[in-house]
Amino acid sequence: MPSSAKLIEIDPAFVEKVIMELASFGAVGATGVSRTVYSPEWVAATDYYARTCEEAGLDVHRDAVGNVWGRLRGSSGEKSVASGSHIDSQTPGGRYDGALGAVAALIAVKALKEQFGPPKRTVEAVAFCEEESSRFPNANYWGSRAVTGRIAPGDPERVIAFSGETIAEAMREVGLDPARIPDAKRDDIDSFVELHIEQGPILEQAGLPVAVVDAITGIRHYGARISGVQNHAGAFPMDIRHDPLAGFAEIASGLINTAHRVGRPAVTTVGRVLVEPNFPGIIPASVEFSIDARHPDAAARRRLYEMHENLMREVADRRGLEVDWRVMIDHEPSPSNPEIVSTLQRVASEQAVPYMTMASGAGHDSQQMAAIAKVAMIFVRSKDGRSHTPDEFSSIEDIVAGIRVLAAGLHALAY
Amino acid sequence: MPSSAKLIEIDPAFVEKVIMELASFGAVGATGVSRTVYSPEWVAATDYYARTCEEAGLDVHRDAVGNVWGRLRGSSGEKSVASGSHIDSQTPGGRYDGALGAVAALIAVKALKEQFGPPKRTVEAVAFCEEESSRFPNANYWGSRAVTGRIAPGDPERVIAFSGETIAEAMREVGLDPARIPDAKRDDIDSFVELHIEQGPILEQAGLPVAVVDAITGIRHYGARISGVQNHAGAFPMDIRHDPLAGFAEIASGLINTAHRVGRPAVTTVGRVLVEPNFPGIIPASVEFSIDARHPDAAARRRLYEMHENLMREVADRRGLEVDWRVMIDHEPSPSNPEIVSTLQRVASEQAVPYMTMASGAGHDSQQMAAIAKVAMIFVRSKDGRSHTPDEFSSIEDIVAGIRVLAAGLHALAY
Repeated sequence: MPSSAKLIEIDPAFVEKVIMELASFGAVGATGVSRTVYSPEWVAATDYYARTCEEAGLDVHRDAVGNVWGRLRGSSGEKSVASGSHIDSQTPGGRYDGALGAVAALIAVKALKEQFGPPKRTVEAVAFCEEESSRFPNANYWGSRAVTGRIAPGDPERVIAFSGETIAEAMREVGLDPARIPDAKRDDIDSFVELHIEQGPILEQAGLPVAVVDAITGIRHYGARISGVQNHAGAFPMDIRHDPLAGFAEIASGLINTAHRVGRPAVTTVGRVLVEPNFPGIIPASVEFSIDARHPDAAARRRLYEMHENLMREVADRRGLEVDWRVMIDHEPSPSNPEIVSTLQRVASEQAVPYMTMASGAGHDSQQMAAIAKVAMIFVRSKDGRSHTPDEFSSIEDIVAGIRVLAAGLHALAY
Repeated sequence: MPSSAKLIEIDPAFVEKVIMELASFGAVGATGVSRTVYSPEWVAATDYYARTCEEAGLDVHRDAVGNVWGRLRGSSGEKSVASGSHIDSQTPGGRYDGALGAVAALIAVKALKEQFGPPKRTVEAVAFCEEESSRFPNANYWGSRAVTGRIAPGDPERVIAFSGETIAEAMREVGLDPARIPDAKRDDIDSFVELHIEQGPILEQAGLPVAVVDAITGIRHYGARISGVQNHAGAFPMDIRHDPLAGFAEIASGLINTAHRVGRPAVTTVGRVLVEPNFPGIIPASVEFSIDARHPDAAARRRLYEMHENLMREVADRRGLEVDWRVMIDHEPSPSNPEIVSTLQRVASEQAVPYMTMASGAGHDSQQMAAIAKVAMIFVRSKDGRSHTPDEFSSIEDIVAGIRVLAAGLHALAY
């Protein structure tokens, strides 16, 4: 019987304590968290994460973009095994999205240290600085992109916040030098396993606490704008208007209906709308809107985007409106490493944790990490499938089950 | 031949000077104006209007809500004849909407004084403080409602700005006492004639400078809100979402299409949209939106609103969303006084100004003033039918033609 078959013990009270303490930084209302990258709340959260790693006996390193690493040194000199997720949130999100993966990694590494002693490969827990694009709409996995060397030299000046500042300015405000970003690049990570809440209802519907993730869907975000002719809402007959809101409404319906008709797992969301000038008595001049469209199959994804772009062009042309769009984010589907998927499936069985295997409909840092390491993910059941809201919730029981699979997986990879 | 048949002379250079000087208060870019009620720009504009009335030899009175009146005293002691429009603007609007009617009244009364001497009835020019609801969405003709005694005692605390302050607070900031609003009520106005830009394309399509307005359309503004379940844009399958943006898009399309199918003169506009939380990666929790729907026929107006409300209920029910709405503004159609309409038609012919007769698709202070006086309106051709935008424009030639009809009309009513 391999050593990983030993049942790993995780203290539920300690798990809950760390989740709740981390959630206090940027707390909104009873259960919400609003913690954007490089904000004062974010600084406090990263300090807490570093302190908690230190208390667990891990070596702490903060890299050039503000990712926090806690390391349990291995003896073999081989590449390391890492786990973690992002510490930033939506505005507001909840306690679990991202944060849980950073906490789970820390607690799993702590448990390995306490229950198995020093590993062969170095094992690392990481809190990535940014994943949500909730402050900078095209930050685009800032933390894990830095680790994989995928931040281009001009990016710090090109990544602009909703409120106008550059990410370079935001970095300098918290004492980070954008010129040093290349120092964050790693080439010594063998494997990366990310634990995350599911953010969907599939595990709940299946009655299972945990999933092993075999692929991450492909994502594209468009920033689109449809323009017409601003006018008085009363004095201008309907038949000669060029109303961009009418065009927007038809396009938004069409995009959403298209994803419905393509069927699972295609999803398309219009989540952000800005009408200009946005007054009741004025036919608008323009409507800006976002499109988030995803599919885990590369070819099906391309067809979905073609349908969306054709629809926008057709509606705008027919209505005498102007439409244009930019691709803000674009990620190909990212399959997990089959060997790590097998390992996680095996150790879940050994740890007596019921699981299923599924694809992720959300994007994750793992798909960036796949550029430099073998990757896979573990999902924990979400109540009502909810996330990106203060209402997101996973039970401590399910979380402990997920951390036990994670710790056993890291053990199998590093000892 | 009645005295009103004398050709009235209006100096185009003076008209242009006053329009441009007034437009400097709240100027935005080359041709825009952003001047909300009780703002610093508004205070400066009312000071300018009062000063210009004084320079024209009129007696100036500022009432309890900040309306500015310039009076040419009559000899008979009978009720007065008044003209004017509002001095506030959209954000930004242009130089002409409202402002032109205040300026035209001033210049018409000045011309009557200079060319005909003292009248029998007092003739008054007025700049109403507020009509656009561009700062307070339910201010609802604040200036002319004060004059007609239609502001309820609790209104100053109930009328709330888009940015949260009450109109009572805004009044106090410019030295006006909300408790004194009842003092602004007038019961000594016999007739009210308002000159305004058309704000639509009908005069331009007919090739005419001026219209006599025989009715004002009925208007309703709804504030509506459709709510669903906020969620992650990637991990939640389309078929089990309760996406309020999908419901909003179908409703907005449906409302606009309904007004199209009813046909002229029905109009429906969705001009204001607020998505919560408004991020690309989040299925929204709710969409707030405005509906502006108008028809000059009372029964047709009711049918239009029934269709709109039925549509909203049907879409929300079918999609498992919640919808509710409040009527923010509701005005019955307001026919002009037939005798004043006939008088204006006659004097337009006498002044050799080509004109047509039409209904107004926009709401105006006149429909409030109809509660205490006989009313009618004069429209001046709008370039491209545009208004509520810095691009709105009427030529000085057309404006002078309109002021000549106005002055001749006031002469016929007051001398």
